[in-house]
Order: sequence, then structure tokens, then C-alpha cells
Amino acid sequence: MTERIEIIENIFNANDRLAADNRKLLEQAKVFSINIMASPGAGKTSLIEKTIAGLTDSLRIAVIDGDIATSLDADRAAAAGATAVQINTGGECHLDAVMLQQALASLKLDRIDLLIVENVGNLVCPVNFRLGTHLNILVASIPEGDDKPYKYPAAYQGVDVLVINKLDLLPYVPFRMDFFRAGVEKLNPGLRVFSLSCITGQGLDSWLTWIKDEVDANRSSKAAN
Amino acid sequence: MTERIEIIENIFNANDRLAADNRKLLEQAKVFSINIMASPGAGKTSLIEKTIAGLTDSLRIAVIDGDIATSLDADRAAAAGATAVQINTGGECHLDAVMLQQALASLKLDRIDLLIVENVGNLVCPVNFRLGTHLNILVASIPEGDDKPYKYPAAYQGVDVLVINKLDLLPYVPFRMDFFRAGVEKLNPGLRVFSLSCITGQGLDSWLTWIKDEVDANRSSKAAN
Repeated sequence: MTERIEIIENIFNANDRLAADNRKLLEQAKVFSINIMASPGAGKTSLIEKTIAGLTDSLRIAVIDGDIATSLDADRAAAAGATAVQINTGGECHLDAVMLQQALASLKLDRIDLLIVENVGNLVCPVNFRLGTHLNILVASIPEGDDKPYKYPAAYQGVDVLVINKLDLLPYVPFRMDFFRAGVEKLNPGLRVFSLSCITGQGLDSWLTWIKDEVDANRSSKAAN
Repeated sequence: MTERIEIIENIFNANDRLAADNRKLLEQAKVFSINIMASPGAGKTSLIEKTIAGLTDSLRIAVIDGDIATSLDADRAAAAGATAVQINTGGECHLDAVMLQQALASLKLDRIDLLIVENVGNLVCPVNFRLGTHLNILVASIPEGDDKPYKYPAAYQGVDVLVINKLDLLPYVPFRMDFFRAGVEKLNPGLRVFSLSCITGQGLDSWLTWIKDEVDANRSSKAAN
């Protein structure tokens, strides 16, 4: 039993070391990077499409898409106007720092302002594997139900930003926003939250403004160095 | 690399052996058993609540609930009228045959007609770990989107029955049923599909009738042995 725990810890240590390498690479190239995680179907790809559409005039954006099979999501990101790289995990339930390292090697980082990494749709495993991105972002969605922070606490604890998507479905499903938000607040006090709908566009402006500001701040802080 | 593959194969072999033991135990006690898998928030627990409510007068039902944290789902199953056992996976992303074996030991199997196992909400990992139940059932939900069979093929290939839940949300989301069903049919030809809504009750009768028939058939086949 002890041996098994040690092996797992070694894997996490190795992953963290590679994540730190990835981060250094991104910092050197002045690329601001986010890792987007969520359940299958919460709307990661739709949010990325809207983000590209809203920011492609002012930012050079690349997307690295992790999927078990198909390149459907990378195709959508490319169609929306971003440089897109597909990581086919071959059945793996999460991205890890090695996979990101390989994908980064295929990008011209000095020509990118914002890198969006779309993780595999999974509310359990991805949060255990840091990639080296600046921020970890969780997309929740209204029809998933208001008990998710209570049932998947690690996912909600391990992120820097929460996006609540599919706000347009709120009238049609039983979802107690107060109960949901109380669960989030307990796990991750003061967490920054954006509530929006990728279908109606409600709330998207605040999200886009925030991302743009983060990218700008990242560029200026680098310039000052 | 070969060594790693061998270790993983050994784990799967060990799991399959234990799954076979579980099945034998269930057969001996004439318990018909199903393993319900899905993304977080697809409606596993709601479907189980409706199943208990619809069948509790004619069947003795037990639920084994796998969750990373909390006993919220087991509480709901118990409130609906079933015997409920909670498996807290302690962060594990799936149930396996060992966990089920331990849970079975805490149940009086000769007093149960139908055992419902609710797996951890995860569209990737659970399908790799057989539990020994008679049938594996996947719950998909309309707001997850119509591309899920294409993006998570193993989940759709590895099941005996598909339930499409949240049919009441079809008017409010972009979901091409033909595209979804074509993806399913390609991966798992002839798969039995139930389309329903746990909110409106639409389609629930067919599901309940089918489950009841399966349980009855299981009891008579055993009686004939």
C-alpha cells in the first residue's frame, strides 16, 4: 500500500516539474495561458468559440484541445479563427504536463498572446494534473444541477475562476443558485465567478473584458521586467 | 513501457475476476442488477428516484451509490424508499469490482429483487471497470450536446442500454437527435434506447415496464434452473 502511494506521488511530482517547465516557456514567450476544465457538455468548446470570436481582432489566440477521440473541438476552434492543436489522449481521462509540453513544441509561442487549453471533459481527474498554465478555470453549467460543488469538491477547490454557463436554461430546470454559490464559496472563498450564456450572449462581455485585461497585464508586467 | 502495460492489464484482470465473483453472488441470490453510468449531472440520481418510486410497490430495491464525497445521492435513494448503501470512493473517479464486493457484503441479498448501482459521474473511466452487474446502462442528457457519442466513444460502446434524459429541454438547446442517434448506432448497433424526462415523466413508463420485465425474467429463469 505504501509503495502504491509512493508511485503515485512520484507521478504527481514529475508532472509538477514538467508543469513548471511549461510555465517558464510560456512566461518567456509572454503568452498568457488558461486551462479550461469541465464535465462533458458543460460548454467548454462553445465558450472558447465565443472567446475567440470576441477577441481575435485584438489578440493572437491559440487553442490546444484535449480529446479522447476526434478533432471536433479543435476544428471548431480553428473555424472560429484561432491556431488550433489537437491532443488525442488515446483514452486517457485528462491532460497532463507532458502532453502540453509536446503540444507547445508545435506552436510558435512568440506569435501568441493568449493560449487556451481545453481539457478532456471530466469533473474528477484533470484537476489533479497541473499543466503549467497561469490560471485553471472550471466551467459549470446550469442543467448539471446545483449539487455539483458538494459532490465534486476537488474540482471546485482546485481552480482560480468559475464560469457558470447555460444561464439561459435557468427558467427550465430546478437549480437553486444560492445553494450552488454557497457550496462554491465554502470550498473556494472569494472565487471569481462569471455567469453567462454562450447561446444568448448574456454575461459574455464581462468575461471577454476580464480575459483581455489579464492578457494585457501579463504583457505589461513582462515588458517591465 | 511494456511493464506499465502489463501492470494495467493485471489490474483489469483482477477486476474482471472479482466482477465475476460479484455476478455469481447476485445470481445465487436472484438479484437483477444494473450499473448506471453518466457524466456529472446527466440525471442518474433522478432516474433512480423515479425508478424506485415507480417500482417500489412490486419490487424490493436496493441502491449502491458511488460518490467521491457526500452521501447526497444515497440519501435521495433512501428517501425514495430503497435500501441504500453509500460507497465513498475518496477521490477515485470510478467504482470497481472490489468496492462493489464490499458494498454487497453489507446487503441482505436474498431480500432484494433489483440492485441499482450508481457509478461516479464520469463519462471516461467507469466503463473500463466491470462490476459484475447484469447490465451496464448509460444515461445521456440533452443539454450535454449531440456530439458526445463521437467524443466519448468508449462510454457508448461499452453499455447494454442507453437512456436519453432531459427530453423536456430539447426545445431550448441545439441538439440534432438524428446526428446523436447516428453516432450511437455506429458505435453500438441495435443498442436499446429509452428517451425520457425525469421532470415531466415523459417516456418513464416504457423504462419502468422494461426494468420490471427484466427483473421478472431473471426471477423465472432462476426458478426454472
